[in-house]
Amino acid sequence: MATDMIRQPLLQESSAPPDQLPIKITPKKRRFRRCRSAPSADTHSDFSPPVGSFPGSERFSGETGPSLRQVVAFLVVYLGTATVCFSVVQNQIGGTKTVGLIDSLYFCIVTMTTVGYGDLVPKSVSAKLIACFFVFTGMALVGFLLSKAANYFVEKQEALLARALRLPGEAQESRVMKEIGANRAKYKFLTTAVFLALLMAVGEVFLWKVEKLSPVDAFYCVCSTITTLGYGDKSFSTLGGRVFAIIWILTSTICLAQFFLYLAEWKTESSQQLLAEWVLNRRMTFVDLEVADMDQDGAVGAAEFIIYKLKEMGKITGEDIAQVMEEFEDLDVDHSGALTPGDLLLSRSSS
Amino acid sequence: MATDMIRQPLLQESSAPPDQLPIKITPKKRRFRRCRSAPSADTHSDFSPPVGSFPGSERFSGETGPSLRQVVAFLVVYLGTATVCFSVVQNQIGGTKTVGLIDSLYFCIVTMTTVGYGDLVPKSVSAKLIACFFVFTGMALVGFLLSKAANYFVEKQEALLARALRLPGEAQESRVMKEIGANRAKYKFLTTAVFLALLMAVGEVFLWKVEKLSPVDAFYCVCSTITTLGYGDKSFSTLGGRVFAIIWILTSTICLAQFFLYLAEWKTESSQQLLAEWVLNRRMTFVDLEVADMDQDGAVGAAEFIIYKLKEMGKITGEDIAQVMEEFEDLDVDHSGALTPGDLLLSRSSS
Repeated sequence: MATDMIRQPLLQESSAPPDQLPIKITPKKRRFRRCRSAPSADTHSDFSPPVGSFPGSERFSGETGPSLRQVVAFLVVYLGTATVCFSVVQNQIGGTKTVGLIDSLYFCIVTMTTVGYGDLVPKSVSAKLIACFFVFTGMALVGFLLSKAANYFVEKQEALLARALRLPGEAQESRVMKEIGANRAKYKFLTTAVFLALLMAVGEVFLWKVEKLSPVDAFYCVCSTITTLGYGDKSFSTLGGRVFAIIWILTSTICLAQFFLYLAEWKTESSQQLLAEWVLNRRMTFVDLEVADMDQDGAVGAAEFIIYKLKEMGKITGEDIAQVMEEFEDLDVDHSGALTPGDLLLSRSSS
Repeated sequence: MATDMIRQPLLQESSAPPDQLPIKITPKKRRFRRCRSAPSADTHSDFSPPVGSFPGSERFSGETGPSLRQVVAFLVVYLGTATVCFSVVQNQIGGTKTVGLIDSLYFCIVTMTTVGYGDLVPKSVSAKLIACFFVFTGMALVGFLLSKAANYFVEKQEALLARALRLPGEAQESRVMKEIGANRAKYKFLTTAVFLALLMAVGEVFLWKVEKLSPVDAFYCVCSTITTLGYGDKSFSTLGGRVFAIIWILTSTICLAQFFLYLAEWKTESSQQLLAEWVLNRRMTFVDLEVADMDQDGAVGAAEFIIYKLKEMGKITGEDIAQVMEEFEDLDVDHSGALTPGDLLLSRSSS
């Protein structure tokens, strides 16, 4: 018994790799290998799908550099333009003033994040209309910052997928990645929570020690700011305070929004996992078997089973399947119900 | 030639339905039918996936009633509690006052939407802490309202899928639904845009005629409110104005947020469609064929082709496939590489 228990994992892990691959089941005669020696018009020889050559594929390839750089560029252009505009009309903006350029940048940040303390308010028609313009564009930019963060998350997932495709045989590896994938939203949420707590603490201490607010008023101002509420009875009135606020307001408001976003993502992920588990553990019936049997040969192959279950989980839709089926029927030149190298050669010679 | 062109569509549409079904290809011997007469422990005989029996399945079944009702219930409880709390501390809230209960409700709406004019501000420690509590919970509730709207959207999609499953043979029907699906985000965006313009116009006229602001100031106040900026130099100071504001602020701030949300959704949808088109139109190579051939029988069946293409489109991941494959290997008791009624009977007798 004991030797059996020791031998079993060894057998599963090492001695039977070719037919234990998660996506390869029946290792019949591999007559397909021969086609590799046939003359080929292929431009790529990589086994992973060549998604990289899709125009605008930086969003799908796992590269996060360009999009983050894009966001920073947008932000710099926006802040620059807004600061110049508010500097031009600074005499038409009333309230507690410090240094012209800092006030303009501070007013710009308070406006774009929709905090809107009201410690600085536009007094003329032109200043009011400029503020209206910059609050809408600023809102869109903040949304853009948030969605880029979401994209970053998606891209990380894509990178994991890419690695999974490169190591399809290592079941352990795939299990580890499943774990990472399952806890990703939770991990992101917890990271954001820690960062948010840190930002709140920094704001609290700053408002208490530098802006000389009472601890309760400092907390009230922190809450009022990060939620973009901004009643305006407590705000940053010193030069140092405003310099600090420019960085702190932008990071803390976005951090709180991400906190809520990841919380929602975590909940969605959990409920999707619950549904997936339910679908997988649900007992297969004869009716299920008949519905899943796409080619009606009386048996449900691995691929048919995967499609049936993923459809039930809501991961793919009938529309998705129909769209690909159209393409399949076009490619299946000899109408055999399966694509062979012959079909490809036929379609190439006819086109 | 002419008769050929007339005959062809007829042939495709009516005379060959069984093998032209989008998900059924080779109408071989249907020996599987016989299994229906076998004794069955099935509790459901419907051909559509029995997702309805999943606990909490109201979110997946296309029923929108409960979730919307849930949101309304949450909102009523929240507004009731907040109004009572603010009424209790109303002497500790400073600013322009009208009628106690209306002011409390108005202050609650201004706080939960994070508009935060500052025309009413908490003066005591307890009032400030209550405001801090209600702005966080209010923010979460507004996010909940928004996500429920998104869920509603997803559920509509699910309902479409359900209809598609019931009519798998009608290619026309599936094409119509693909059209609806493709333009859904755009349509939602445009509807929201019209509704937002209407809300802005109503607010403009009200602030101009009832609150006696100049047209420019009214516009400035509208922009400052719907974006939740709320500088507070212009706000609702009359009793009638505040009653109006209670409804108008809540609807217009959520409407603007949805406007941005649907705009982003529309853009995502377009880029996903672009990727799907690119994946489908990309020429299949011999390497693709070999990678797609999951069971290595030298030919790529319809189901294998669908999985390969949907994976390339990013609609399913290697993790999704691996998860279902584990279940498949458990069910495939006789290790034939395909599920047959025999496998089900074997697994039932052994469990």
